[in-house]
Amino acid sequence: MIPRYSRPEMVALWEPQTRFQIWFEIEAHATDALAELGVVPKSAAQAIWAKGGFDIARIDEIERETKHDVIAFLTSVAEHVGEPARFLHQGLTSSDVLDTCLAVQLARASDILLADIDALLAALKVRAFEHRHSVCIGRSHGIHAEPVTFGLKMAQAYAEFSRNRVRLVAARADIATCAISGAVGTFANIDPRVEAHVAARLGLTVEPVSTQVIPRDRHAMFFATLGVIASSVERLATEIRHLQRTEVLEAEEYFSPGQKGSSAMPHKRNPVLTENLTGLARLVRGMALPAMENVALWHERDISHSSVERMIGPDATITLDFALARLTGVIEKLIVYPERMLKNLNKMGGLIHSQRVLLALTQAGASREDSYRLVQRNAMKVWESDGALQLQALLEADPDVTAHLPPAAIAGNFDLGYHLKAVDTIFERVFGPA
Amino acid sequence: MIPRYSRPEMVALWEPQTRFQIWFEIEAHATDALAELGVVPKSAAQAIWAKGGFDIARIDEIERETKHDVIAFLTSVAEHVGEPARFLHQGLTSSDVLDTCLAVQLARASDILLADIDALLAALKVRAFEHRHSVCIGRSHGIHAEPVTFGLKMAQAYAEFSRNRVRLVAARADIATCAISGAVGTFANIDPRVEAHVAARLGLTVEPVSTQVIPRDRHAMFFATLGVIASSVERLATEIRHLQRTEVLEAEEYFSPGQKGSSAMPHKRNPVLTENLTGLARLVRGMALPAMENVALWHERDISHSSVERMIGPDATITLDFALARLTGVIEKLIVYPERMLKNLNKMGGLIHSQRVLLALTQAGASREDSYRLVQRNAMKVWESDGALQLQALLEADPDVTAHLPPAAIAGNFDLGYHLKAVDTIFERVFGPA
Amino acid sequence: MIPRYSRPEMVALWEPQTRFQIWFEIEAHATDALAELGVVPKSAAQAIWAKGGFDIARIDEIERETKHDVIAFLTSVAEHVGEPARFLHQGLTSSDVLDTCLAVQLARASDILLADIDALLAALKVRAFEHRHSVCIGRSHGIHAEPVTFGLKMAQAYAEFSRNRVRLVAARADIATCAISGAVGTFANIDPRVEAHVAARLGLTVEPVSTQVIPRDRHAMFFATLGVIASSVERLATEIRHLQRTEVLEAEEYFSPGQKGSSAMPHKRNPVLTENLTGLARLVRGMALPAMENVALWHERDISHSSVERMIGPDATITLDFALARLTGVIEKLIVYPERMLKNLNKMGGLIHSQRVLLALTQAGASREDSYRLVQRNAMKVWESDGALQLQALLEADPDVTAHLPPAAIAGNFDLGYHLKAVDTIFERVFGPA
Amino acid sequence: MIPRYSRPEMVALWEPQTRFQIWFEIEAHATDALAELGVVPKSAAQAIWAKGGFDIARIDEIERETKHDVIAFLTSVAEHVGEPARFLHQGLTSSDVLDTCLAVQLARASDILLADIDALLAALKVRAFEHRHSVCIGRSHGIHAEPVTFGLKMAQAYAEFSRNRVRLVAARADIATCAISGAVGTFANIDPRVEAHVAARLGLTVEPVSTQVIPRDRHAMFFATLGVIASSVERLATEIRHLQRTEVLEAEEYFSPGQKGSSAMPHKRNPVLTENLTGLARLVRGMALPAMENVALWHERDISHSSVERMIGPDATITLDFALARLTGVIEKLIVYPERMLKNLNKMGGLIHSQRVLLALTQAGASREDSYRLVQRNAMKVWESDGALQLQALLEADPDVTAHLPPAAIAGNFDLGYHLKAVDTIFERVFGPA
Repeated sequence: MIPRYSRPEMVALWEPQTRFQIWFEIEAHATDALAELGVVPKSAAQAIWAKGGFDIARIDEIERETKHDVIAFLTSVAEHVGEPARFLHQGLTSSDVLDTCLAVQLARASDILLADIDALLAALKVRAFEHRHSVCIGRSHGIHAEPVTFGLKMAQAYAEFSRNRVRLVAARADIATCAISGAVGTFANIDPRVEAHVAARLGLTVEPVSTQVIPRDRHAMFFATLGVIASSVERLATEIRHLQRTEVLEAEEYFSPGQKGSSAMPHKRNPVLTENLTGLARLVRGMALPAMENVALWHERDISHSSVERMIGPDATITLDFALARLTGVIEKLIVYPERMLKNLNKMGGLIHSQRVLLALTQAGASREDSYRLVQRNAMKVWESDGALQLQALLEADPDVTAHLPPAAIAGNFDLGYHLKAVDTIFERVFGPA
Repeated sequence: MIPRYSRPEMVALWEPQTRFQIWFEIEAHATDALAELGVVPKSAAQAIWAKGGFDIARIDEIERETKHDVIAFLTSVAEHVGEPARFLHQGLTSSDVLDTCLAVQLARASDILLADIDALLAALKVRAFEHRHSVCIGRSHGIHAEPVTFGLKMAQAYAEFSRNRVRLVAARADIATCAISGAVGTFANIDPRVEAHVAARLGLTVEPVSTQVIPRDRHAMFFATLGVIASSVERLATEIRHLQRTEVLEAEEYFSPGQKGSSAMPHKRNPVLTENLTGLARLVRGMALPAMENVALWHERDISHSSVERMIGPDATITLDFALARLTGVIEKLIVYPERMLKNLNKMGGLIHSQRVLLALTQAGASREDSYRLVQRNAMKVWESDGALQLQALLEADPDVTAHLPPAAIAGNFDLGYHLKAVDTIFERVFGPA
Repeated sequence: MIPRYSRPEMVALWEPQTRFQIWFEIEAHATDALAELGVVPKSAAQAIWAKGGFDIARIDEIERETKHDVIAFLTSVAEHVGEPARFLHQGLTSSDVLDTCLAVQLARASDILLADIDALLAALKVRAFEHRHSVCIGRSHGIHAEPVTFGLKMAQAYAEFSRNRVRLVAARADIATCAISGAVGTFANIDPRVEAHVAARLGLTVEPVSTQVIPRDRHAMFFATLGVIASSVERLATEIRHLQRTEVLEAEEYFSPGQKGSSAMPHKRNPVLTENLTGLARLVRGMALPAMENVALWHERDISHSSVERMIGPDATITLDFALARLTGVIEKLIVYPERMLKNLNKMGGLIHSQRVLLALTQAGASREDSYRLVQRNAMKVWESDGALQLQALLEADPDVTAHLPPAAIAGNFDLGYHLKAVDTIFERVFGPA
Repeated sequence: MIPRYSRPEMVALWEPQTRFQIWFEIEAHATDALAELGVVPKSAAQAIWAKGGFDIARIDEIERETKHDVIAFLTSVAEHVGEPARFLHQGLTSSDVLDTCLAVQLARASDILLADIDALLAALKVRAFEHRHSVCIGRSHGIHAEPVTFGLKMAQAYAEFSRNRVRLVAARADIATCAISGAVGTFANIDPRVEAHVAARLGLTVEPVSTQVIPRDRHAMFFATLGVIASSVERLATEIRHLQRTEVLEAEEYFSPGQKGSSAMPHKRNPVLTENLTGLARLVRGMALPAMENVALWHERDISHSSVERMIGPDATITLDFALARLTGVIEKLIVYPERMLKNLNKMGGLIHSQRVLLALTQAGASREDSYRLVQRNAMKVWESDGALQLQALLEADPDVTAHLPPAAIAGNFDLGYHLKAVDTIFERVFGPA
């Protein structure tokens, strides 16, 4: 985690204060359940909630001695609660607290990320409808192909992030489980009803079978899902980087009016935000593999996953949160140049319509071979003129062409509407009925 | 893909015969829809189904000339169908065929993998119930902790692969979409109803917005999911490798009666199948990253994803299919040694019960400090005897202990049943009510 | 490995014939050394070389029974050699043969890859000198910056692949070791001089300390190095893909005269080779991680590395060999458009020289603030004209500018030579003195 | 980077103070060179060194306004230096400073890591010689094979980390280059001699051809090398984790005399340090891939690498530094149990010698089949007795065996020295002549 790629809410989630607060709630809820079961006095459970608290500096101090974070925490709580504190943590194992806390943190992190995706979806939808019919050239292999609209690009991203939302909801469910099952998960020293109570209070489901730890396939799936979402961030960022290239310039990241590009070169506005997002995507993606390697713990558990999660837990969620928010800002403020889109679209002198003319000639009775030859000899002239000649004009002036197709019929094939007729259908698929 | 780690059904799915057959069906279904819409004659559509076919050697021959696989395929089909073949592929783009075919292949691959998981789940369930109460030591950090049962280990794996099944079903849905939308996905030359028809016939859903290609976040999620499943394979394989270690030997991969371990050393039975599975897991996991890098294609598409998918499409599915089947065989035939489990469990002279004695002393009125001291001084003797002394006997002979707890009360703490009382509850969570 | 991305020499290296031939040589050389040491008869060693051979179909047949490839091989050899065959493999372990064979294969693969890099370097050098002074715009962030030359781009790639060559030589040395040390690497049953003899004959160094297997950090380093080289392939491929974009079109992959782009659209020449290389780079890179995971084998060895290497050994080397050769072909035949480069360079109406004018104004005595304001107000007009106006003309017509700099002095700042003066120096750094 | 897995020296290297200090030195050295070339006054260069300084809080304040870190830094320096500050940064580009600074940081990080490896090598050497002849069982596949010594295990690790040292020296050379070449690397505004001077002063080599940035294949190779080293850390950590398993217990991580294992269970000493190292290895390894993805920057540069390096630059070096130091501590203090090694070695009742007896019988004239049968029938009894019977005794009592080999001859085959005779040879290979 580095401050410049972090947002406060997600950072706060991973700070000691939050972690210890969650620990406290787990312990206090567990004590409630134990009191209900008659294992500890109800008065003790009440006292814990009433007087409970902890002191981070004190916990650090104790941990330096004991080298055990949960014991240090419990000692600090005991200093607040007094005598009833001895009823805390009865039958629990440290991992019960640690793993359930991680589940709460990842579930909350998911909620922030889901809100991030929602904000991004909202921004994409606005821009999609705004530019539903802003025609631009579609490019395959980086080469001009046929017309699309800028709104379709936004709709595509909307559909992609809608899928990511579904995936993240599933990943959230995967990691939101509670385990309070003791040293090897057998409930030898604790009643399963305690687990059920804590789970319910924290909004988690019960881990069906734990082994001191919650199984790590859950976390692997979670981080792999973040990696996929990050890859979608990269895709949209890459699109914008391409559109902002000097030679293309169909869209630009927002520059404030007074902002200097680069000293005296007004064109030097760099897509630094989307380039940055490209790098952040690499980082988040790279964290999926250590998470997958964490799955194969030895027997009932080893602790090799812990150092991995201490790093990627905060890093992956903080980085993706930042990336999604940055991307949303980029989309919201993106400067779109529809005129430039048209100019680029027409750059080829109408060659993008050549296939349709070819089809029209065939349908008008020309053989496929003749049609091809007629179109190509005119297309080649347009191409070699580098934008000076227009295909429509050349065809209309070519008697071999007009022998099949009168000029009026030729013109009809240069209609952009032909390519846009299904845009509304696609929008309805993506955004639902209007 | 290498033959020794392959199974025929999955291999067949990726062979040219299957691919061309799917292409044929896509084209023929599309022609049906075009006929229904009045774009092509119904007789042509019927002729295509009636006379349709292709010749792989001929396709290869044509492709060597044209360098274009779909054109080569269509030419070969035309050689079977004759004149009506000119109504094939009307308004389609090669990618419509290629991407929809990949969707069919990955969906079918998912079905095979789901069947593999079902077989594995069945095997795990049998062994879980068979060894529901086969007590063995639970190990955290590789160190003896408290008792579990071998059935619980199997139940844990069952729960994990049940989760993997859910994930794979979701991943299958993610990739099972059909796109027949033309050069840049705008349906300029084809009616969206053709796509809907083909999708329905092939058991796919319609891709809401494609861009010549089906978006690759779907495939990234698919291969990431295979990576997680492979990691679970590794976890279970690692467990067996540990259990088969010479010093542990609580379970062994099956050896046929006549099979030689290693010449004259009868103990030299190596867990080579599960070691092999560990390596296969690394391979499948490693394929998730190229799949994620494939997401950010340029603009409406570039073709960089293609070489990646030509390799990992077959390799990841074939390898995981093989691995799941091999793992199922290992579980089904695994030789389990309950006596050895007990022997290992008791190796520590009863130290695994020390915590419970400590608790009993405290509850009997001894201070926590005294209880600890009393247990530890006896525990230390047991530990230093390396298996010669038993904790229970020592405690019963220690008057400072018996002052608090009479021998009968001591014995009660050495009851294994204490640790197993929740096994049935856990089984019910995992397998449902009996 | 898939045939379309494979070249025969590298494929042959991984075929059974080659593997068994190397096995034979290892065994025969070892027997020579044993004969020299008096352990086996010299006549036996001679007979092995004289009559030695094997039959792959026969080996397969035996392996189906014995499930042991080395035993099957030895049996087949014995069927050729007769009685003296019993002196083969004395004191050797299967892994001695397998791991030393892999070392030979990877060393030979390295030699092919080194030759590939040499061919690529040669192609890059030719194009670098050819276009040493072909000026084009340098782009940072995809935005026009200042002039470079196309030759410099080639020189940069040359320097990068020169570094890759050095890395591959080191990686080759890392994996080219021979281990013939027995079941756990202690030479209990074999004299270390046998290992030294075989190593010398096969052009390998001796593994200082093996443990049945050659340590896998060597292979991890090898495959990581291939991953870095693949990433360099991706970089150069990406450059070409960018240059071939419709709006840029400064270079194109070669199209044969008769080759059709896409039916009637003559501009539809797609950079499919370099897109393909981008995908291949992802594949090779992804194989580095399983190789790194192979390092931590258990104790003296487990066999989890084997399945990984059976796949990535051929796949990574075959794919990278193909990629390097394809890239060399792309570079050799790349169609370069210097006029288009100039046209693009001038697209900004001379704005790329604005910084230098700014500096000239400052040096002529204008304050930094004034200089900036004067340049920017003219630059902005150029920018807004989208190519219609030229900065030089505007400046020469701006009396506030000419008050400081006479038109002749202004013109001097629009000299491209200013940017190219160090090109020869850089070439000398990269290619050595002329 | 997280504090608990960090050491101060490496952390300091990545702190703002260090970075700005390096920036200052780059700028000041560059100004020296410019003064020498007569571009700026020598007095200015002297003044910069004399009065130079910066204020981090002030830099942060300015950066909040300008959003440009290098400008903020230069402004702060100017506030210390006064008027001569205007001669700073003449002809330089921000990336000249940033990339050269990163080179200095990575080179210094390498030096720390090299010292870490040296300390680890020293520790390994001490333990290797200490236990050169401490016999223990060698295990392949986790199964007892033949004897090795604990010293050999240490020697193996020594050889492996010696190789890693060589690799890191190469990686250091790869990233230790200086680029001061201007906006697109053409030296348009700066003399190459400035670069040469700064490089020499900072202990770097000159980057032969840069493109605003130093090419990222260098950094990819660097981080890939750290990934390989981390994998070796994992290998040694895994060995120790295995040796510390309850059933094996041939070595243990150090526990201070007063340290509690787990309350009353004296055997509960967990190998938490080496488990932690296993996780850290996963993290460092995972960072190699984003570094490889950084190679293919667009054209002369994009800035996507930057966010990746801001994270993995510190994280990979800090984590590996910590891991190497922790591993060194583990090795230095490792508690080794040679008696337990012997006990485990003998656990199989002498079966580990069965192959050698087999060979002796054959050499004494028994047929291979008879020899095998005789050994195996006795071996099987030993195996089934689970440690109660000894192979040597059974063989000596088997008249069919003694018919070929008298008891004295049998005993000779149970000599451990047979397996250890090459230990000194191996040590000489690894550590050099005594």
